[in-house]
Amino acid sequence: MRTPAQNAELALLVEVTGTPKPGNVDRKHDLPGLRFEHFLAGAVGAQNGLRMALDPERGVGTAFERSIEGMADQSGGNTQFGALLTLVPLVRATATEELTRDGARTVVGGTTVDDAAEFYRAFDHVEVRAGDPPEEMDDLDVRRGSEAVPAVRERGLTLAELMEKSADRDGIAQEWTNGFERTFQAADLIADGDGPLPDRAAATFLYLLSREPDQHIAKKHGNGTARSVMVRAQEAREGGPELVEAFAESLLRAGINPGTTADLTAGGLYVALERDRIEP
Amino acid sequence: MRTPAQNAELALLVEVTGTPKPGNVDRKHDLPGLRFEHFLAGAVGAQNGLRMALDPERGVGTAFERSIEGMADQSGGNTQFGALLTLVPLVRATATEELTRDGARTVVGGTTVDDAAEFYRAFDHVEVRAGDPPEEMDDLDVRRGSEAVPAVRERGLTLAELMEKSADRDGIAQEWTNGFERTFQAADLIADGDGPLPDRAAATFLYLLSREPDQHIAKKHGNGTARSVMVRAQEAREGGPELVEAFAESLLRAGINPGTTADLTAGGLYVALERDRIEP
Repeated sequence: MRTPAQNAELALLVEVTGTPKPGNVDRKHDLPGLRFEHFLAGAVGAQNGLRMALDPERGVGTAFERSIEGMADQSGGNTQFGALLTLVPLVRATATEELTRDGARTVVGGTTVDDAAEFYRAFDHVEVRAGDPPEEMDDLDVRRGSEAVPAVRERGLTLAELMEKSADRDGIAQEWTNGFERTFQAADLIADGDGPLPDRAAATFLYLLSREPDQHIAKKHGNGTARSVMVRAQEAREGGPELVEAFAESLLRAGINPGTTADLTAGGLYVALERDRIEP
Repeated sequence: MRTPAQNAELALLVEVTGTPKPGNVDRKHDLPGLRFEHFLAGAVGAQNGLRMALDPERGVGTAFERSIEGMADQSGGNTQFGALLTLVPLVRATATEELTRDGARTVVGGTTVDDAAEFYRAFDHVEVRAGDPPEEMDDLDVRRGSEAVPAVRERGLTLAELMEKSADRDGIAQEWTNGFERTFQAADLIADGDGPLPDRAAATFLYLLSREPDQHIAKKHGNGTARSVMVRAQEAREGGPELVEAFAESLLRAGINPGTTADLTAGGLYVALERDRIEP
């Protein structure tokens, strides 16, 4: 039987396989310089960190930092940062609490200043799209990576508190703050869905995309674009497969990647695999 | 950095991604009831056994049996039996000898009767296509699985000796017996190739298929079919991409899967990833 860490890895692999996931790498689509096999290597490389997330002696932040270090050991760049930020607390909850929204809340609530420091160190391994932080948080800019660690310690912020400060503009931080609402919603949709697991993942991705503006798009292209993509996702869903395929091509051409929505889908896949024993 | 066990897992994932690999599941093709995601789950599930292959305290046979048990924990059936039979001794050679043909020979030469017994136990987890053994080996029919273990012990056969007995009709047993000749040939082709790693894997697969009759096809459809597929693979290679695609469709329609050739390609990918540090 697969361990929770292995189900998390499998969730990453099934997520990138599901197609069409408009704008993202999937079984049928690559992006320039970012290809399917980079996601395979990223998922495999993340395994050591994910296994660490099962060990209550290791900090959630350390498990996350190690998963990112391993994920980044391929030439495509940042493949699964947000997905791992979603998965690590869920894997920990599986090990020490239970895999429920309450269990995840307990894990988040238990994070420390050390976890926050490790979270910043994770940014040393990747280039992440992040907007400018509010002025009073300049010294906490995630793009500073480990250089921001002294400021984190000085302010005495736990990882949970840090996430709260970004929850209004980062889709994964929002999940950390509200008990992974959309992740568990995705899991229910996947578990109740029909057909092969990657197809359920793709359908769930499109549903999530049609309901809230993708924050990765918002950071890169602005809120207007993120909102317009949401509306177009709804139209594509209503229009059927051909419209979805055309929507996918159009996002790829425009270089618009709903990355946060993919991260939530990976989280939902993990819960469906681990909690509901949905089988590939 | 990925461990050898992780590179072996990544080799399985890249192998199934490379397309077109005529007749087999790949990034663009599924088979009835055997889909891409089954190979993803098979690769992830094999990880525990592959990690065991790194531990000199564990038998090669045990590592193999565990990798098969984990691989089989998905609903598609036998996805990577032959590939793991190729990979496990190579991972062991990486850990205790060196990743060369001589290193692999040393590992094979060091196998015991216990390893042979575990090899038979592995067959309990899967349905494997195997021909009738010669009459004097009836009690060693691999399809008997663990029921054959007493006969294995009575005869005092090591795993290497068992493989020798099948080398003339099983492509992986042949590799075990000759120091993994075609696996290392595949590795050189992959390492010297151009373009994305899955593309190199697909090209190497087609080359191998065009050079020797695939033993999996021979077992299922007879030597004549295996030989004809070899000739057609050569014609397709010479004819270019369109002919290769047509050849792929034709094998899929006929239910002809060159499984042994895929196994050797996975082995070659592992050597290229681990020895040559070819990056995805």
